Amino acid sequence: MKKRAFIGKERAEELAKKYPTPFHLYDEKGIRDNAKKVVEAFSWNEGYREFFAVKATPNPFILKLFKDYGCGCDCSSLAELKLAEAAGYSGEEIMFSSNETPAEEYAYASKLGAVINFDDITHIEYFEKNVGALPKTISCRFNPGGYFSIANSIMDNPGESKYGMTKEQIFEAFGILKEKGVEKFGIHAFLASNTVTDEYYPELAGQLFKLAVELKEKTGAHIAFINLSGGVGIPYKPDQKENDIIKIGEGVKKRFEEILVPAGMGNVRIYTEMGRFMMGPYGALLTRAIHKKHIYREYIGVDACASNLMRPAMYGAYHHITVLGKEDAPCDSVYDVVGSLCENNDKFAIERNLPQIDTGDLLYIHDTGAHGHAMGYNYNGRLRSAEVLLREDGSDMLIRRAETLKDYFATLDCFDEFKGLFED
Amino acid sequence: MKKRAFIGKERAEELAKKYPTPFHLYDEKGIRDNAKKVVEAFSWNEGYREFFAVKATPNPFILKLFKDYGCGCDCSSLAELKLAEAAGYSGEEIMFSSNETPAEEYAYASKLGAVINFDDITHIEYFEKNVGALPKTISCRFNPGGYFSIANSIMDNPGESKYGMTKEQIFEAFGILKEKGVEKFGIHAFLASNTVTDEYYPELAGQLFKLAVELKEKTGAHIAFINLSGGVGIPYKPDQKENDIIKIGEGVKKRFEEILVPAGMGNVRIYTEMGRFMMGPYGALLTRAIHKKHIYREYIGVDACASNLMRPAMYGAYHHITVLGKEDAPCDSVYDVVGSLCENNDKFAIERNLPQIDTGDLLYIHDTGAHGHAMGYNYNGRLRSAEVLLREDGSDMLIRRAETLKDYFATLDCFDEFKGLFED
Repeated sequence: MKKRAFIGKERAEELAKKYPTPFHLYDEKGIRDNAKKVVEAFSWNEGYREFFAVKATPNPFILKLFKDYGCGCDCSSLAELKLAEAAGYSGEEIMFSSNETPAEEYAYASKLGAVINFDDITHIEYFEKNVGALPKTISCRFNPGGYFSIANSIMDNPGESKYGMTKEQIFEAFGILKEKGVEKFGIHAFLASNTVTDEYYPELAGQLFKLAVELKEKTGAHIAFINLSGGVGIPYKPDQKENDIIKIGEGVKKRFEEILVPAGMGNVRIYTEMGRFMMGPYGALLTRAIHKKHIYREYIGVDACASNLMRPAMYGAYHHITVLGKEDAPCDSVYDVVGSLCENNDKFAIERNLPQIDTGDLLYIHDTGAHGHAMGYNYNGRLRSAEVLLREDGSDMLIRRAETLKDYFATLDCFDEFKGLFED
Repeated sequence: MKKRAFIGKERAEELAKKYPTPFHLYDEKGIRDNAKKVVEAFSWNEGYREFFAVKATPNPFILKLFKDYGCGCDCSSLAELKLAEAAGYSGEEIMFSSNETPAEEYAYASKLGAVINFDDITHIEYFEKNVGALPKTISCRFNPGGYFSIANSIMDNPGESKYGMTKEQIFEAFGILKEKGVEKFGIHAFLASNTVTDEYYPELAGQLFKLAVELKEKTGAHIAFINLSGGVGIPYKPDQKENDIIKIGEGVKKRFEEILVPAGMGNVRIYTEMGRFMMGPYGALLTRAIHKKHIYREYIGVDACASNLMRPAMYGAYHHITVLGKEDAPCDSVYDVVGSLCENNDKFAIERNLPQIDTGDLLYIHDTGAHGHAMGYNYNGRLRSAEVLLREDGSDMLIRRAETLKDYFATLDCFDEFKGLFED
């Protein structure tokens, strides 16, 4: 599949005059079309809700877009709860899935009426002791251990991840919670990240549905919802096939009808918590080539760096690059595309075939809509960039300003002797 | 070598009352004793100067400590230049080693009278065109390409790194610069990171000294200094032997006398740019165990996360952990020590043998003095911590406040509708 930018050179150059590069640009039309499809894919399930994973793109303007599709927010920290609140979410529209959680964060989630998802069995006692009475609805996070595989290919190893309860523990937890007066239960599990296959959700759903039937039979708990969490990925590379969310929804439906309906559990709600799938492809990092260097390799220096997009540095992740205006030019040059950090992993591309790049060219780095700006840091004193929304009508809107040196020095503002640092 | 914390439980608990965990603590006495030794190690060289790598610990209070040892600052961005300036550095006390450098940063370095270190030959023209006349002193960064090895063991691969000029280019650059009126020259090279061997600097020095002789002979340039840059490491693991800086200094001296002195270049100054070696061991992250979890492994949840220390998550780096008060207890438990991020690489230790840890224990994570706080991010809405200096006289001093939610939301402060987010 040829990966296409959602903006052309001319419009991008206009934006670059208004918002100095680098900046993240989000495509409202793409976001909305995709969200509509997600809701459609699960429309067979009454009460279905997607809880957007705030950590992927913690911007309140983005969160607000998802309100139109009946979405909720998946939060895991105080800051994320505040963002969800600011965007107008409340009560059971908020899922609080946290681990190693300080009491004050549980308390704030509780105050908002969010659904609490316990990561560990010890959190029941911790919550009662430090926060107060348990809410009437509680979710528990399950971790089946071992390896998670589909068609004999290992996808991830939940047994080495810190999340969730063992099967034994989740039975025990449901028993305890029921005794303590909890009335509605949920189950949550996350087994693999960024899966590019239509089989992941259905396979996971099958496991959770069976567990739900067993839990209901053995503990008598009323299972109100099953949360498939995240894990539905996107094709970062051009040779990957994108997930078909309609097919995924059908796959989950099939398991639902095979397992839950016969057990008299046809009223269970399906929840999802996608971040990458909801936003990843609908964001791009726009950056300008500012330098060409020829040594043992050919380098293109750009004005963005890992501060703006850390996934290549941290995970060695591939992000496709389109040179705007050269979409159909032959990729007959080989470049390392690099940022300015004094850190050699600050490379957006390594020995990548690209069209010939000239200083001044605008580069469009694909798929930065999720875990892009959110993972920015300030190493080397570099600043995090602005976020801009390209509206459906073609207009543009700043939705986060770029950092300034004043922001960078803010945590020194309590010292008189360094006051001078805070003037931009 | 048994790794020892520079603070005991009792004093650490006192500090934790004043500065809520997690926070980075720096040991002034350790910093000063080490800096003194570094200066001593190179005291045979007239004009020797260590330029502290600001990126390692970009805190002006730390930078000021190094003034007492005649140090300078190694900067590579506008923010770092401002920090050096705020700490009282100016002129040739500042080395500006940057790559993919925007013109405004060169201009500011120039204004401060900093020594400019050109990363690429094209920067000569770029500087003249965008900044102005070349300064009388210029340094050029060299990259020998290929692999860098000592005693047949490959240490790093400069040929795959984006830094510096080829040998051919550095000769050409010196020629051009000389013609353009530059009077004093420097050579800079960085070939390997965190080397734990006393051979690295001497080996590198040998290469650079030979290059300097050749450059002088062929271009007639006056080589004023040779900058060995960084790369001298520290023993993160208990089984590693720490570098002996006195021996390293002697090793460099031997090459100096063998190569430079006979060539009539005995007045060349030696510069270094250490960050890790100057600060790494003299910082620690203090964090409290807030949760114990037993599933397929044993987990200790702490109140710090990768936002406070990213090296384990980004590089899989080892950081030793001391459980304060249990320094001599048997390490008969095996834990994953984890933070709260929704990101499974947020682990400070994986299957590590440690003393039995109880909730409430204070953990001392070693060697966070360099590239610790500096690399923090805000993923999941987590906040970066305070920095505290443990003074030589045993007193303590806050040298950076912890981030607040207001800081986290600062780049949304230009939008009226989200004003409410900025009250703490």
